[in-house]
Amino acid sequence: MAKIHNAPTVHPPVGAYSHAIEIPPNARWLFISGQIALSPDGKVPDDFNPQCELVWMNLQNVLKSAGMDIKDLVKLTVFMVRETDLPAFREIRDRFLEGWRPATTLVFVRALARPQWLIEIEAIAARA
Amino acid sequence: MAKIHNAPTVHPPVGAYSHAIEIPPNARWLFISGQIALSPDGKVPDDFNPQCELVWMNLQNVLKSAGMDIKDLVKLTVFMVRETDLPAFREIRDRFLEGWRPATTLVFVRALARPQWLIEIEAIAARA
Amino acid sequence: MAKIHNAPTVHPPVGAYSHAIEIPPNARWLFISGQIALSPDGKVPDDFNPQCELVWMNLQNVLKSAGMDIKDLVKLTVFMVRETDLPAFREIRDRFLEGWRPATTLVFVRALARPQWLIEIEAIAARA
Repeated sequence: MAKIHNAPTVHPPVGAYSHAIEIPPNARWLFISGQIALSPDGKVPDDFNPQCELVWMNLQNVLKSAGMDIKDLVKLTVFMVRETDLPAFREIRDRFLEGWRPATTLVFVRALARPQWLIEIEAIAARA
Repeated sequence: MAKIHNAPTVHPPVGAYSHAIEIPPNARWLFISGQIALSPDGKVPDDFNPQCELVWMNLQNVLKSAGMDIKDLVKLTVFMVRETDLPAFREIRDRFLEGWRPATTLVFVRALARPQWLIEIEAIAARA
Repeated sequence: MAKIHNAPTVHPPVGAYSHAIEIPPNARWLFISGQIALSPDGKVPDDFNPQCELVWMNLQNVLKSAGMDIKDLVKLTVFMVRETDLPAFREIRDRFLEGWRPATTLVFVRALARPQWLIEIEAIAARA
């Protein structure tokens, strides 16, 4: 249902994303809060890699709770705090996206809501 | 109309938000600019609490101008600059939300468009 | 199709944006990734002004690839890194928007995905 648009007049996407995703009328929409690295037992991993994987697992579980999955992702917004985590982020993202390429924005902010959090990902999903 | 999804496999939300909000087809949508602490007479309060309350009042008034209200909020994105304002933000948010829990992302950025602004809240709302 | 809402109870917008944009049911939606200053030949301009103009041209081209244009923009989110670039941003934005005023949020983040990037603009567009 989602239609990928990568304008030939614009540089190719620099990573696993699409320049734009089009969604036709009559979809149901899911707006997902910024997911953070908190496990069901209240623990926050110290390092970036387990934090990032936990964020993606939370995102998967939230999608699943609404009857959606990774391929329904329309837009991701990624908030990170350390530039040095970017290669690890890309490796983990590519694994979880399984070839799907949602529209994406990624910026480095000064801090997230808790000082130990290193990454937060919010998402918009849609399914016809 | 909006359907709340809090996946049982994910930690409970750490505050007055939902992990995800689903909106069915055939809603009308309202995209609201980042609201800042500016009163109709052009004044900006010095302190965080009156700034935050003014932002929420502006948000309420923008919703009202489109025939919507707080319960139509689907997603909030909160940009703040000082971590020390977080408890006050939560207290004021909880009061204005009146029990409703939209999907929410909150990050600390380096600065907002004017140096005196301490908080900016943008929102997406929908009504069937 | 898009309906502008500027609540009379809220300060006038402080720039070329609207407080809120309403989109009725049955629109098709376009979610556009954060556009950055990268030309099709892989070059990044050094200065802010050519970067900002390139971002806007990329945004225009992405819209065009989906059969949309500037007047279909519903929401812009602008991420910048230097406050001193704000006057130049406004001048360039006003030129590209050609009188249209989408809902907009603008914040200053610590950094973008590449250290040389000074501005990133993501967008949501809709057409009935």
